[in-house]
Amino acid sequence: MKASYYNCDKTFTMGACAPVEPTTGDVRINVAYCGLCGTDLHVYHGHMDARVGCERIIGHEMSGTVEAVAGDVSGLSVGDKVVVRPLDPCNDCPACHNGNSHICQNLKFLGLDTDGALQQNWTVPAHTVHKLPSDMSLKHAALVEPAAVACHDVNRSRLVAGEDVLVIGGGPIGMLIAMVAKKRGGNVYISEINDQRLEIAESLGFNTINPVNTNVGEYMYEITGNKGADVIFEVSGSQSGVDCMTAAAAARARIVMVAIHAEKPKIDLFQFFWREIELLGARVYTADDFDTAIEMIASGAIDCDTVITNVQNLDQVGEVLADLSGNPSALKSLIQVGSEVA
Amino acid sequence: MKASYYNCDKTFTMGACAPVEPTTGDVRINVAYCGLCGTDLHVYHGHMDARVGCERIIGHEMSGTVEAVAGDVSGLSVGDKVVVRPLDPCNDCPACHNGNSHICQNLKFLGLDTDGALQQNWTVPAHTVHKLPSDMSLKHAALVEPAAVACHDVNRSRLVAGEDVLVIGGGPIGMLIAMVAKKRGGNVYISEINDQRLEIAESLGFNTINPVNTNVGEYMYEITGNKGADVIFEVSGSQSGVDCMTAAAAARARIVMVAIHAEKPKIDLFQFFWREIELLGARVYTADDFDTAIEMIASGAIDCDTVITNVQNLDQVGEVLADLSGNPSALKSLIQVGSEVA
Repeated sequence: MKASYYNCDKTFTMGACAPVEPTTGDVRINVAYCGLCGTDLHVYHGHMDARVGCERIIGHEMSGTVEAVAGDVSGLSVGDKVVVRPLDPCNDCPACHNGNSHICQNLKFLGLDTDGALQQNWTVPAHTVHKLPSDMSLKHAALVEPAAVACHDVNRSRLVAGEDVLVIGGGPIGMLIAMVAKKRGGNVYISEINDQRLEIAESLGFNTINPVNTNVGEYMYEITGNKGADVIFEVSGSQSGVDCMTAAAAARARIVMVAIHAEKPKIDLFQFFWREIELLGARVYTADDFDTAIEMIASGAIDCDTVITNVQNLDQVGEVLADLSGNPSALKSLIQVGSEVA
Repeated sequence: MKASYYNCDKTFTMGACAPVEPTTGDVRINVAYCGLCGTDLHVYHGHMDARVGCERIIGHEMSGTVEAVAGDVSGLSVGDKVVVRPLDPCNDCPACHNGNSHICQNLKFLGLDTDGALQQNWTVPAHTVHKLPSDMSLKHAALVEPAAVACHDVNRSRLVAGEDVLVIGGGPIGMLIAMVAKKRGGNVYISEINDQRLEIAESLGFNTINPVNTNVGEYMYEITGNKGADVIFEVSGSQSGVDCMTAAAAARARIVMVAIHAEKPKIDLFQFFWREIELLGARVYTADDFDTAIEMIASGAIDCDTVITNVQNLDQVGEVLADLSGNPSALKSLIQVGSEVA
């Protein structure tokens, strides 16, 4: 069986990997597709070498079919279509004890802290596996993980139907958040600078704003009768996005911090005080978010064919990540991992 | 009757003021005491001259007795002990329409946007007046307004009994927040650099931390079994306070932004993402917060005699604000406004 190995220095090489026999509590999956995301891009650029090392199989936005099941695992059978929620918590830290095992203080993230899905056979703990409807496209199912991120972000925002929503950053996660927020009844605006992504957002029926030529804060106040945005998702990871988020916020607005800010930006804390704004950090997902994401993809509320703009091969991981490093026209790039998949 | 007028350039002068006859909906109050706060200090330093002008009577942390009542006002009688909630909302902006009139987008703050309580007779809208128990000390009652701020801040935090609470900054508001949080069952730590204020905090039974010689984040993690603080109040208004607030925060901690940050500090947004921290802006108070503050002062849950460290005269407003501008040993300084008060 084949795998793509990350060898540091922006290098991925193809290699063999022996199928691991599932022991107690494990399941082996024949991986079909694996999406590449911002975290994989951080790995590619070497920012996470201390954590992942130089012989790691990465990848976690996957879909596949069950190939082997340990004797003690129930509810899963060979041939089932599945996705993996790549979180392995310790169940013994304060965060786990307080019911927040998805942000466990000793969390192992499969595909970073352990080998991931860019291999043809992946063995994982059964508690991470979610079964899919038998008629779901495995290509679409590779979006379950990022869609679960979007579901988690929208849950954190406590969005109520009829509220005005601003998504700052129209990449794959921003676009998925916009779709989930729209499904929940939000009146969604997307702020984005990339022309191709603006076009995609418009084709999906979203209101768009280009912050290069429009003051986003003033625009949101104007268009909402001097109220501002009720819910804001900061997905850009930029100082200008952080400036927008406070400028556009209504009294008592909820801002969800989705982006990973490696640098510490300056924030207009006075506006937090003045308008009693809330900032809510959001990271990964819970099991419920995964189930919701599966339902939304199954029902068509998430337009997978628009989000998936490229499908490439397992020996092209480095090329795809190099392309994503620029100002990409792509939204979501998938790697076809299995040799024959639908 | 006498008043203290702010004349810009750090100057207050004594002058006459004629009692205003209460017209429709108004009440005239014989002011007993008026506390001075951080906002008054901003006025003193000229930062708010554009808003308040150079002939303004400031002051809003007051107590007094009703002296005259307009014919259409019910529920208040001459001689009643009262305090004023100095907020006059428009009732017609989006914030007011959404039930948040305390942060009305056109809010008039009495004592800044209109003349305030540093005058012997103050005429105000009856809807701003809260009646006090007849046996309450008018000196203690001058703390109702800052205590209502503290009640509002603790309400915003959703504090549950048994949680670990960090108050960053042990000035008057920080100390009142600590008292309210303790009353609600919080296990309270106060971080403060001023030795006199640390002594007062310790005398009140609070755990104290001096960030000059202790790493507050590491300390809070150590002392809570690697959990961190569940609730944090940032009252310092400093970059180092903002650094502490994220470092000390538990997974899913709630940080309440109490301080007014005129500069934009740098914030560790990565920690918001990583630990799913919440930041909650908090400004002024609601009518319920005022009622709770009155109850807490009446019951002794707020130790007014420790918080009130000075009482000075109406012709000493400038001196008191000059003293507060340094590194003050005082906590709360009151001005005795009326000529004869208990």
